[in-house]
Amino acid sequence: MKNLISMRDLSKEEILYFMEIARKIENGEINPDMNRKVAALMFYEPSTRTHFSFATAMKKMSGQTITMRGSVNSSVSKGETFADTLQTIAQYADIIVIRTAVEGSARYASEIVDVPVVNAGDGANQHPTQALLDLYSIIKTQGTLENLTIGVAGDLKFGRTVHSLVQAMSDFNPKFKFISPSFLKMPSYIKDDLKEKNIEFEELEEIDKKIDELDILYVTRVQKERFADLEDYEKAKGSYTLKKSMLDNVKDNFKVMHPLPRVGEIQTDVDDTKYAYYFPQAKNGVFMRQAIISILLGGLDETIES
Amino acid sequence: MKNLISMRDLSKEEILYFMEIARKIENGEINPDMNRKVAALMFYEPSTRTHFSFATAMKKMSGQTITMRGSVNSSVSKGETFADTLQTIAQYADIIVIRTAVEGSARYASEIVDVPVVNAGDGANQHPTQALLDLYSIIKTQGTLENLTIGVAGDLKFGRTVHSLVQAMSDFNPKFKFISPSFLKMPSYIKDDLKEKNIEFEELEEIDKKIDELDILYVTRVQKERFADLEDYEKAKGSYTLKKSMLDNVKDNFKVMHPLPRVGEIQTDVDDTKYAYYFPQAKNGVFMRQAIISILLGGLDETIES
Amino acid sequence: MKNLISMRDLSKEEILYFMEIARKIENGEINPDMNRKVAALMFYEPSTRTHFSFATAMKKMSGQTITMRGSVNSSVSKGETFADTLQTIAQYADIIVIRTAVEGSARYASEIVDVPVVNAGDGANQHPTQALLDLYSIIKTQGTLENLTIGVAGDLKFGRTVHSLVQAMSDFNPKFKFISPSFLKMPSYIKDDLKEKNIEFEELEEIDKKIDELDILYVTRVQKERFADLEDYEKAKGSYTLKKSMLDNVKDNFKVMHPLPRVGEIQTDVDDTKYAYYFPQAKNGVFMRQAIISILLGGLDETIES
Repeated sequence: MKNLISMRDLSKEEILYFMEIARKIENGEINPDMNRKVAALMFYEPSTRTHFSFATAMKKMSGQTITMRGSVNSSVSKGETFADTLQTIAQYADIIVIRTAVEGSARYASEIVDVPVVNAGDGANQHPTQALLDLYSIIKTQGTLENLTIGVAGDLKFGRTVHSLVQAMSDFNPKFKFISPSFLKMPSYIKDDLKEKNIEFEELEEIDKKIDELDILYVTRVQKERFADLEDYEKAKGSYTLKKSMLDNVKDNFKVMHPLPRVGEIQTDVDDTKYAYYFPQAKNGVFMRQAIISILLGGLDETIES
Repeated sequence: MKNLISMRDLSKEEILYFMEIARKIENGEINPDMNRKVAALMFYEPSTRTHFSFATAMKKMSGQTITMRGSVNSSVSKGETFADTLQTIAQYADIIVIRTAVEGSARYASEIVDVPVVNAGDGANQHPTQALLDLYSIIKTQGTLENLTIGVAGDLKFGRTVHSLVQAMSDFNPKFKFISPSFLKMPSYIKDDLKEKNIEFEELEEIDKKIDELDILYVTRVQKERFADLEDYEKAKGSYTLKKSMLDNVKDNFKVMHPLPRVGEIQTDVDDTKYAYYFPQAKNGVFMRQAIISILLGGLDETIES
Repeated sequence: MKNLISMRDLSKEEILYFMEIARKIENGEINPDMNRKVAALMFYEPSTRTHFSFATAMKKMSGQTITMRGSVNSSVSKGETFADTLQTIAQYADIIVIRTAVEGSARYASEIVDVPVVNAGDGANQHPTQALLDLYSIIKTQGTLENLTIGVAGDLKFGRTVHSLVQAMSDFNPKFKFISPSFLKMPSYIKDDLKEKNIEFEELEEIDKKIDELDILYVTRVQKERFADLEDYEKAKGSYTLKKSMLDNVKDNFKVMHPLPRVGEIQTDVDDTKYAYYFPQAKNGVFMRQAIISILLGGLDETIES
């Protein structure tokens, strides 16, 4: 494996391999050394968390980073092509992590350069490192990825994070509950795909409707801007806001996840319950990104057999 | 000790312990290793020097940093709460250094997160790492913190640096000369506090009036904006501008300090005298911040007994 | 040698010494260790490539960097002098790399501070690290710097890169072909200098005119803004745009170089030929800057005798 561009490229075995390496890094069984290695973080779309998570992953392995943001102060303003920028950065860096607003740009980058490329989000398309860290959070809390009942709430229409997650889980015989306002439902092409794979799903409009059946509730942000008028937003808000009072009868292994940042979809009184898992989930992101970088850059072979 | 929020939290013994560790780091007796450790530098208020000083401190111990500036490009613009930002950053970083324009924000942060928090300035309130490096500069040049006569010049009303310094020195039986324009005098609550502790102080309006009695002259910037009109500023300027010609009869151990940047309060002809100590003072900041990070993050125990 | 300010300061022997160290670093014969060392990158003029190249050079030696850009968020806006900023940064950093739009600023900096200073471009004046990496690229591809025929194309009037290159090569008995629109010719003072040194040169207006005689063709950007009107630009463009079809009869050892970014002066179909050397040239920049930093900061003596 040279690049990580899309969850579609990964077999079930490969997904589980990522889980295994992340776990071994977290518990100290393996300790990759990126000393004298440089990751280029090309963030053409702002993303504090994803950027910090990758930077921290690299730095906690003694590696270092160079960061290119926007097009400000960069050669792009001098009229250079994206291909030339990529080829130049590839002369400096050992690995390129790239995030843009343009679908397909990470794949394109991987075809241009010789160094490994990691897709850190390309428009509404894919966000595979988020999907892998989400799966890692699920396996850590549930002990398995198989046969789980997963609620996915929020903006299911435009959220690349939930699209990647649903796709990534499909190999593991899940049941899904999709919870969203009617006009932000999961796209048909994803639902068709699930039907074809005989994966059970159900569409709901209220977050607490079947919460007691869930192993995982994955909540995402609903942007005000999606609503035609603010009144609709205020009305709909309650239906997908998670409150502590909704958790009375949830399963013992139940966990609430969120890719963060949240803007009210989970009330803060949930934070103190044993079900809240969104901050540990962010920490898992560092372990998973350490695993991704290590696997793509190599250097694990001496320490583990897989 | 888990956090460094205010000089008020530190006992005399703790202050001296910081001095001792900084000294041992400077002379190479101890050499803390922050390899694979990450400090988050959250600078919500610009500060080139303090930021560089912390970054350098970390990097000279093989540690690394991630920096969050302003709210630009950050999740704050997506509507995230400050508490959520802090809790997320705490998943990545081993220690948080925070500077904001809001009094009490560092204390608040320390109550939210599990990792150590260092206050790098919270509004007009506290700047304890500056106070500690100032004390370290004093002890290095005077051999002691005890029984010194210290002139403090400039904007004594709004300067958090001088407030922290006066407070920090109070344990060491100082005499103070406060030198400022009449409308930028030291606040009453600080003077009342000194009176209560039986610490001798005197208020002056001219910087050279009693300069020959001083061991230390601590000069700070007076911002033009404080003056009602520019004419007053130009008139007052001379009274608190230090010139080489004023140094003819100073004590042999006399040193001039300044937190920098200066904008004319010390004329450059002072730089070449043996009394100028503001640039070495900046260098001391790196040693002191190495000490602070090491003490809070741990890892000194094996190398020293204290 | 303490600073690297201008190619004019370097003897032929010193130039060759830089080549030797870069080569030994590239092939792993020496492996400088900058752990716990910090380079301050003061970039008062934007330059993605040069900045990344220096940052990468430092980081691939386990060193680290602090970066100061523009005057935004910096103390300059508080009215501090450039000299004070330099003296403060020198308290933090082990070496200063500086780029500004002002000729002579790097020399000035080197006279102010005690730490080594590297000129990363001072206005239209000098860009010695670019010249050294260019020479390193030439010696790697040609096996020698002596007796080469070098074409230099593009904006020869304002390009500091080509000025530095021509000057640097002067010690090695070159023949030059200067290719440019008539109003962007090499300045007289440089041509007078070459005449005095008995170095053969010729001025051409078309890039392919004598391309078959060249060992190296060094292409640079021509900025649209230099032309009085756009029509002239479009007309002239063809004359200094390199196309694959022009390479039919070039020498076997022929290489095309470019400091990058390019904006069309070299068509992309040239990229796939064995003559294209601009991306490897960028990579050479990292090795050369590792050499420069190592030579100025010291630490090579134990590993090599020179």
